[in-house]
Amino acid sequence: MSVSPNVEEVNRFVDKVFPAMRVSCLEITEIHALAVLTVDPDELRPGGFVSGPDQFRLADAVLWFLTFGAIGRVEEMSVTSELSIRFLRPAIGQKLYARADLEVQNRRSVVGSVHLWCDDKPGRRVSTGQGTYALPLPK
Amino acid sequence: MSVSPNVEEVNRFVDKVFPAMRVSCLEITEIHALAVLTVDPDELRPGGFVSGPDQFRLADAVLWFLTFGAIGRVEEMSVTSELSIRFLRPAIGQKLYARADLEVQNRRSVVGSVHLWCDDKPGRRVSTGQGTYALPLPK
Amino acid sequence: MSVSPNVEEVNRFVDKVFPAMRVSCLEITEIHALAVLTVDPDELRPGGFVSGPDQFRLADAVLWFLTFGAIGRVEEMSVTSELSIRFLRPAIGQKLYARADLEVQNRRSVVGSVHLWCDDKPGRRVSTGQGTYALPLPK
Amino acid sequence: MSVSPNVEEVNRFVDKVFPAMRVSCLEITEIHALAVLTVDPDELRPGGFVSGPDQFRLADAVLWFLTFGAIGRVEEMSVTSELSIRFLRPAIGQKLYARADLEVQNRRSVVGSVHLWCDDKPGRRVSTGQGTYALPLPK
Repeated sequence: MSVSPNVEEVNRFVDKVFPAMRVSCLEITEIHALAVLTVDPDELRPGGFVSGPDQFRLADAVLWFLTFGAIGRVEEMSVTSELSIRFLRPAIGQKLYARADLEVQNRRSVVGSVHLWCDDKPGRRVSTGQGTYALPLPK
Repeated sequence: MSVSPNVEEVNRFVDKVFPAMRVSCLEITEIHALAVLTVDPDELRPGGFVSGPDQFRLADAVLWFLTFGAIGRVEEMSVTSELSIRFLRPAIGQKLYARADLEVQNRRSVVGSVHLWCDDKPGRRVSTGQGTYALPLPK
Repeated sequence: MSVSPNVEEVNRFVDKVFPAMRVSCLEITEIHALAVLTVDPDELRPGGFVSGPDQFRLADAVLWFLTFGAIGRVEEMSVTSELSIRFLRPAIGQKLYARADLEVQNRRSVVGSVHLWCDDKPGRRVSTGQGTYALPLPK
Repeated sequence: MSVSPNVEEVNRFVDKVFPAMRVSCLEITEIHALAVLTVDPDELRPGGFVSGPDQFRLADAVLWFLTFGAIGRVEEMSVTSELSIRFLRPAIGQKLYARADLEVQNRRSVVGSVHLWCDDKPGRRVSTGQGTYALPLPK
């Protein structure tokens, strides 16, 4: 049976293969992942809000981590096949958090749901999404 | 009757209110917009591909420009309400292009479809999406 | 303050305005709704599965009920503006259930997440989706 | 090289394996499909409109036909993995049409975009969507 990689393993892996992601993994199990993005004040969109693309970046990253947890290994070649996101309210804060929960895993893909919030307000969701990561097929 | 803002007006506006977007408008009419993102080699994801979040960022930007074209003015407070994106093939190139086409405009929102490609290969789409921009409601 | 309509009120309303829906409301509060569709064996798709469109029909209905709960009244003119659905595993059973949970409500729309399952297997989700109902705007 | 099945072949296949679909294929090639659903007046939703689920049913069907065209055969076990739909304006008419265009085909899936309209008004789209059909994997 597979065991989920731990947080340190995930963060070392991301630092190595995709440092531009700028997202840290905080928690990971077989069925969920938690991640954080520290907001760069220069990247705020008009109104002082965390931009939609920054929210998407975090949502996409936490689904990647969820995929690692679900399949039991970090996997460079798992890639997003589709992701839909809905913006619920203005995102104001210093840190943006996202939690992904597993919907299903099969041999071709991992599907998860994501919720995002700012700072210490998990009950005040700023966006939500669902997406699919495709797994490498056996040759 | 409204007239679409021109490309220079859109790019000046973006430079002023949201320079972090790093996307340029190339064409704008009442029913379409074309935009380009110059790929930063430091931002490539594993495999040397333009990342999904960078593709989303461009898709979101070109839908914003489409909204300006459809409503006949640049509008800081038009915001994405939802966007879904599907990744079709690896994105390899120096420049990423996106074209948005208007699906509908009404008093509350603008809906558009987007296609993305790299360099001089418009027939080789790397991703496609659809999304909704919410318009400010009259007070 | 608004009070959610009760189950009987919702079902009487649906019987009157849209009997073709063939979905019953089982639970409704300000933040969730539960609904059931009795599967017609003649409507099964190849393989004996509940079809995707039947699952969509139930997902759309339970989001409508969620909207009634969130806004505190049955509202004929609330309409789906967008809905995305992901199919997780084959749907086999006599009864299809769906639960919708509120993501946000504002003056223009209600956003919710939906999970579907068959018979007595709520832990074995067959599909999941997210969608937006547009509310009638004040004149 | 594969050749797309023709319209008669598709309609005979659907009549046999899934008659409840009630959708006819009108055109099919390797990169597009056209289909029609004859609206049942008893199925109209409040306001006299073609319901969202009926529109989804047609969108899902035409993407199935597109899949047959793209892979060069009717395939019972190709199934929708995800579909998102946006409703653009009220759908009023006797016949609902949908056209699907191929976005990409690879060995695991077919992705397409869909547009729907009523009667003889192809320029007046009532909804639009994008979706993915999963192909059976080689054993």
